[in-house]
Amino acid sequence: MSNPSKAGPTIGVFDSGFGGLTVLRRLLPLIPGAHYIYLGDTARLPYGAKSQQTIARYTLSSAQFLEQQGAEMLVVACNTASALAMAELKAGLSIPVVGVIEPGVQAAGPADHAGAPRLASATWDSTEPTVLVLATAATVQSHAYAQACEALGLKAYEKACPLLVPLVEEGWIDHPVTADVLRIYLKEALAAAPTVTTLLLGCTHYPLIEPLVRRTLAELGHPLRIVDSATATAQAASLVLPATASTEAPTCEFYATDSVEKFQRLGSQFLGQTLPKVELIDLGG
Amino acid sequence: MSNPSKAGPTIGVFDSGFGGLTVLRRLLPLIPGAHYIYLGDTARLPYGAKSQQTIARYTLSSAQFLEQQGAEMLVVACNTASALAMAELKAGLSIPVVGVIEPGVQAAGPADHAGAPRLASATWDSTEPTVLVLATAATVQSHAYAQACEALGLKAYEKACPLLVPLVEEGWIDHPVTADVLRIYLKEALAAAPTVTTLLLGCTHYPLIEPLVRRTLAELGHPLRIVDSATATAQAASLVLPATASTEAPTCEFYATDSVEKFQRLGSQFLGQTLPKVELIDLGG
Repeated sequence: MSNPSKAGPTIGVFDSGFGGLTVLRRLLPLIPGAHYIYLGDTARLPYGAKSQQTIARYTLSSAQFLEQQGAEMLVVACNTASALAMAELKAGLSIPVVGVIEPGVQAAGPADHAGAPRLASATWDSTEPTVLVLATAATVQSHAYAQACEALGLKAYEKACPLLVPLVEEGWIDHPVTADVLRIYLKEALAAAPTVTTLLLGCTHYPLIEPLVRRTLAELGHPLRIVDSATATAQAASLVLPATASTEAPTCEFYATDSVEKFQRLGSQFLGQTLPKVELIDLGG
Repeated sequence: MSNPSKAGPTIGVFDSGFGGLTVLRRLLPLIPGAHYIYLGDTARLPYGAKSQQTIARYTLSSAQFLEQQGAEMLVVACNTASALAMAELKAGLSIPVVGVIEPGVQAAGPADHAGAPRLASATWDSTEPTVLVLATAATVQSHAYAQACEALGLKAYEKACPLLVPLVEEGWIDHPVTADVLRIYLKEALAAAPTVTTLLLGCTHYPLIEPLVRRTLAELGHPLRIVDSATATAQAASLVLPATASTEAPTCEFYATDSVEKFQRLGSQFLGQTLPKVELIDLGG
């Protein structure tokens, strides 16, 4: 570790907004002795509708800021950046990088025992989809989850759910309208891919509605194993770092590139605890 | 007119995305002999969450592109840009500029006869809100509609409806979920401001759900006069231009600053006719 004065490592967590706080929330108990630096590139979000070159450029400049701040590892808690900027990040940084897509997909593979991530080398033959991926329209259009599934011998059906992020951001976490929307999306997906056995929540906002997803699947008489990328990514990050026996509480600092109002207002719900001050920074562009 | 070879004027129409196509749709029959150049700054949308300086800079660079392309008048079909960049546009351009907010508010004032815009000099005393403005969260936070109402002696109640844009973009124009969401928003607004008599649709996406808004108000036993900014803005623009007796059909060209997929897919619905090719341009930033 480059910072010998601290017991635990410094971990950079990056997202285009505050959604990645659900990943940070899972990291805190798994790597409790660490210092976390979270950056939301709110000035340039959403990444989803932008070109690959633009996304890679934005992501790399954000990641370099985190490395300059002392991050010894980068967690890319953003589906779009994970899908489209990993090669540029690995080339442009000297620290290890973990994205959200591959850990999520590995966790969605058939588990040797409940909840354990499956080794990437194992394969699973299937001609019909076994994994249902719920994600934003941009993530589905990238087919990053389907391709990562294919690399593991899994077949995925990807369902775009464009209303779920706005519903979560409206705070309608346990709301009849959100239940209606979920029922429509899940019915459409299950009609198109009735063979799926695992549901992968492929968006950082979705862990907040996991209980409602579970209830809706039960109502539809189609219970599925639910895996979320946030939890799987935190687990993958904890495997990359050497084990530390620190009993210190984690510390966090937060940065955003534009108006922090929404970040501050909704962030606490995503983090599961009160969000401290968010500092505004300028990355240009 | 700087382009004597043409019978009608060249009109630039600007929005951060494709929502402003509802304004262009209203312009076509009102100024039929014109040539229209539409620019959606899709690379940098949404403007709503960005700072005033950033929005003014983006808007001015977009407007200057339209002026360079020969626009003799600019219609700012974007609520955020109309709220936050009008001073910079008027200072930085040499052509007349019409935004969406003031025409919408003028049309929401008490009409001398149905549908006629009211003169800005007249005033109307009211201590209770008479105008209900539905808009995005960003537009409501700017209070641009409330301030423009106040300048005319009108009191407005602004209601943020963050789910309506995603619902329209999902294509759920006449859908039970959209009806449920509208009922929730309208009930909340009418409980808070029971004295309103006019409803102002303060977002370029909302004209597509006007029939559903009308039906929901009737169901709630609270029919209101409905005014939309798109129609009012087109009317205001037609008043700025000298009358032309052209019988030519209007011509249009379309530009966007990033991925045109969504623009192309949804644009036809907003324009009310098939959208021709959208050309990709680079404004930097």
